[in-house]
Amino acid sequence: MKPLRIGLAGLGTVGVGVIRLLRENAETITARAGRPIEVVAVTARSKSKDRGVDLSATRWHDDAVSVAQDPEIDVVVELIGGSEGPARDMVETALTRGLPVVTANKALVALHGSALTRLSAENNAPLLFEAAVAGGIPAIKLVREGLAADRLHSVGGILNGTCNYILTEMRTTGRDFGDVLTEAQAKGYAEAEPSTDVDGWDTAHKLAILAGIAFQPIAFDTLPVHGIRDVTAADLTFANELGYRIKLLGMARASKDSGIEAWVRPCLVPAKAAIAAVEGVFNAVTTQGPFSGPITISGRGAGEGPTASAVVADLIDLARGADLPVWGVRNTPAPVACTSLGELKSAFYIRLDVEDRSGVMADLTSVLRDHDVSVHFVSQHDAAAGRAYLALVTHQAPEKAISAAITALSALPVVKGAPLVLKIEDSLQ
Amino acid sequence: MKPLRIGLAGLGTVGVGVIRLLRENAETITARAGRPIEVVAVTARSKSKDRGVDLSATRWHDDAVSVAQDPEIDVVVELIGGSEGPARDMVETALTRGLPVVTANKALVALHGSALTRLSAENNAPLLFEAAVAGGIPAIKLVREGLAADRLHSVGGILNGTCNYILTEMRTTGRDFGDVLTEAQAKGYAEAEPSTDVDGWDTAHKLAILAGIAFQPIAFDTLPVHGIRDVTAADLTFANELGYRIKLLGMARASKDSGIEAWVRPCLVPAKAAIAAVEGVFNAVTTQGPFSGPITISGRGAGEGPTASAVVADLIDLARGADLPVWGVRNTPAPVACTSLGELKSAFYIRLDVEDRSGVMADLTSVLRDHDVSVHFVSQHDAAAGRAYLALVTHQAPEKAISAAITALSALPVVKGAPLVLKIEDSLQ
Repeated sequence: MKPLRIGLAGLGTVGVGVIRLLRENAETITARAGRPIEVVAVTARSKSKDRGVDLSATRWHDDAVSVAQDPEIDVVVELIGGSEGPARDMVETALTRGLPVVTANKALVALHGSALTRLSAENNAPLLFEAAVAGGIPAIKLVREGLAADRLHSVGGILNGTCNYILTEMRTTGRDFGDVLTEAQAKGYAEAEPSTDVDGWDTAHKLAILAGIAFQPIAFDTLPVHGIRDVTAADLTFANELGYRIKLLGMARASKDSGIEAWVRPCLVPAKAAIAAVEGVFNAVTTQGPFSGPITISGRGAGEGPTASAVVADLIDLARGADLPVWGVRNTPAPVACTSLGELKSAFYIRLDVEDRSGVMADLTSVLRDHDVSVHFVSQHDAAAGRAYLALVTHQAPEKAISAAITALSALPVVKGAPLVLKIEDSLQ
Repeated sequence: MKPLRIGLAGLGTVGVGVIRLLRENAETITARAGRPIEVVAVTARSKSKDRGVDLSATRWHDDAVSVAQDPEIDVVVELIGGSEGPARDMVETALTRGLPVVTANKALVALHGSALTRLSAENNAPLLFEAAVAGGIPAIKLVREGLAADRLHSVGGILNGTCNYILTEMRTTGRDFGDVLTEAQAKGYAEAEPSTDVDGWDTAHKLAILAGIAFQPIAFDTLPVHGIRDVTAADLTFANELGYRIKLLGMARASKDSGIEAWVRPCLVPAKAAIAAVEGVFNAVTTQGPFSGPITISGRGAGEGPTASAVVADLIDLARGADLPVWGVRNTPAPVACTSLGELKSAFYIRLDVEDRSGVMADLTSVLRDHDVSVHFVSQHDAAAGRAYLALVTHQAPEKAISAAITALSALPVVKGAPLVLKIEDSLQ
């Protein structure tokens, strides 16, 4: 049977993994896809670099757009990365030609999803991106197909392995953020420029994609994003004592007024929740629906093997004739703004660094009371000489009340340094 | 757009759930499926029973085969259950007519999968059964599509909510099997005739389906199946102290000689494994592959909502044009026999009820030594007057050596009652 001919751009870890996987499992993949899948054209930054795979029978192109213009390919695989430049040019060129595209590029889909969706629909060219979210975990297929019957209440989870590794290490070793980050960089778990991961942007890109499939596309610039730099080893200890773990979560919920509540931030999750047991570089996606109930899937969120597995699964879907609209529905609505967090009620964890003298706890809790924030639990812990940590858990309160209270607390002379406020995400099972 | 017209047989919990879900989420389902999905013809045991859904506009048939013969339907949904009789007749009639079939009937697919696959292929009629395995969890889609690129090492998990509920209750309350089973029956979590669940047959049906998709169909009568009746509250306590949970697992592995190792039995799993945290009526499916790594998905394995969600997801797939072969490959191989367990090496947990007198432990461990079974750990616990429990953990040993040793141990006068032997499943992450 005629092979499905792939033009691939980007021969980093994932690109090489895709070629290796297609060759190693060729027989199985042919049986499942109904036809062979072969990479026939490639491009990358360096033609001469030895990548450990034989490319002598593969056409070389000098740039990504020219791969997308190759008349002898059936599908484009984009593994360059980045929301602009050659990645975007290549995908747009391919879709315009009516060629199906498979990409692992979360930033591209999160930021330019609407324009690409239009191109995909106009030219009847599928755009698949299973590898863009949670690596080897088929999270997109889960939501777009496996749970297509249900109108989910929520979708999200632990979407960045670097942050989860750092938080796990901080908790189990008691070391602080900077220390663990440096080690993660040395081990290759974190980039030299770690901002995309630790400031939450990678999680935000993935969450925007999940929300787009579960609900409708969201305007990325309205998504509140907060990373893990402010979380200290002390916070992880206090959370532990309270029966919680701290996880960087990206969550999206259908709110009552038919808007979408979405955010990325470190949260306290119950130690008993399925997601709390997801440690190290693992990712997890969790959904909650009126019919399907709670579902959690966990696995490796990055790396050569898992990401290649997701890219090739998309290729097999295409070979099998899959032809789904980008977000699972024809006539995708325009992106909506995320609802403002101010009115949303939640319990919160607040950690304050204060002068260690009598009456401080009473002073601080009275400020909270003045802002209608009622305290469920407070504990005091030794810090540096003459200083103490207060770890508070509030009852449910609107987030804007918490923000106002924190501003007032920060202005008090007894409060040293910036308070840390983390949402308590009690509803996860 | 023309609706997809469904003929449905069986109006129990799941059947009514399917009708309710299709109506409640009609708008969303139409958008995702690309066309409306409507139940136009039904049958069930009683026409007059009030089921809380309005069927006045739905054609009534007096039997399931006549639904499958209805000229005005596009898809048959079989929710009668049972591997023979009207369920089988209906599915065969529909496939022979070239009509796609969606079923939640695990016994039918596990026992007659080969014949139905032939009918499906000959008549180009898809046969889908997402709801047959793990209820609302899209486990079949995960393996057949999401992980289609990988040649999995293993697939399996906790596939029966009744057994998991009973084992969870026994562990947390210290009550014994019979007691908890009676309560589960009163609560509706277990059937009046509990054998299908507690003797492992339901798990076996589901495992056979998962193995068929991940590897190739297995001859069901060669699958070793053992249920949970022999497990006592004391065993759950001893396992706990050893750092394990006891779970009824169904697991299938590709073995080195290209055979398939598969079994259903209660096992000790590490308390830290993702699957150990799956409690109560929840199910979990776990896979391990060279590229995709370990993946675990958990959720509700039964009930109206989750099962209806899976059935309707299959219908949406059909409306979207899905046309996959039954086991994910054309030219399905004939079912293979499972490899014999005798040669497989594993660590085991052995619990013996013995006379409480000096030297007993030495006598018993020397019997094990004579059978080349080396003991890693042994602890003695008080039992009834003059009696003691010995809980042993062996090193890796071939299962036939364990069996021979147990036969010898059982013959000793100091050993009272039947020893319990449980596999220790250490490889789950």
